[in-house]
Amino acid sequence: MPIISPILSNPLADGRQSERAMVIRRGVQRLLREMGAHVLPELSLATGRRADLVALTRHGDIWIIEIKSSIEDFRVDRKWPDYRLHSDRFFFATHPEVPAEIFPEECGFILSDGYGAEILRDAPEHRLLPATRKALMLRIARAGAARLLAAELAGVSVPALEGESE
Amino acid sequence: MPIISPILSNPLADGRQSERAMVIRRGVQRLLREMGAHVLPELSLATGRRADLVALTRHGDIWIIEIKSSIEDFRVDRKWPDYRLHSDRFFFATHPEVPAEIFPEECGFILSDGYGAEILRDAPEHRLLPATRKALMLRIARAGAARLLAAELAGVSVPALEGESE
Repeated sequence: MPIISPILSNPLADGRQSERAMVIRRGVQRLLREMGAHVLPELSLATGRRADLVALTRHGDIWIIEIKSSIEDFRVDRKWPDYRLHSDRFFFATHPEVPAEIFPEECGFILSDGYGAEILRDAPEHRLLPATRKALMLRIARAGAARLLAAELAGVSVPALEGESE
Repeated sequence: MPIISPILSNPLADGRQSERAMVIRRGVQRLLREMGAHVLPELSLATGRRADLVALTRHGDIWIIEIKSSIEDFRVDRKWPDYRLHSDRFFFATHPEVPAEIFPEECGFILSDGYGAEILRDAPEHRLLPATRKALMLRIARAGAARLLAAELAGVSVPALEGESE
């Protein structure tokens, strides 16, 4: 594997995510942060399905980014159209060893090498219905608060950040 | 001081919160969690003011809880009516050594001893305007995601929890 992972010992890998998926995720997180979007990993949707990354833009737009670490990983996934119903834009993200042409033209496409990432194809916009957006925003807000409280009760400091809500 | 703090070495105390305020906060957090509300500390509002605790109920109601650790702490606060404009319900929380009667009747009142807390007076409901609610929910969601990402980039594991969004 020519990619040398900067996060070999990432403590967040919980068994569901492969090391390579974590490398892709890290690059995408950095890209989104640079774009001013805040991003929450592993969000359970109302369907019970778990989105790899959910991004919230400054304006409240919700994007879902699904990470595919191999051709096989993409091929076995029959569920991705569902993600379009739960986002304003939907992207696949992968790394340079996975052929870009296997991913559907009608989805956004992000290439990530772990240090950074680039949007190679923008995603078409399919605006969420107001009720869906409201429910999803509540899920994101509640998930974030729940994780932070669990961390705090476990003695881990996760302080507020300057400008975090701007 | 008769209260023995269970969280003397809490790493979240960042200089803004006194030790006693942290004890009160911990009890309130536990109470709210038992009630099924998720709670985020130290949220900056659109006014620039920082709410001590913001709770999100299952139904998406937003409560603000302002922690007062002493009579003086309450007396110098001229800003609390603002919090009512940014919540569906507003509570003061304190500990048993602060006289309950100094707090305004028109606000909710929570007594906390650090291990747990109790709502001694429910707060009247003053429903948020839809646009204010939407903006506030986005602030909560973005703040949570921002803190979690900062923690993750610093190498701290804050995994998803079962049922966190329910």
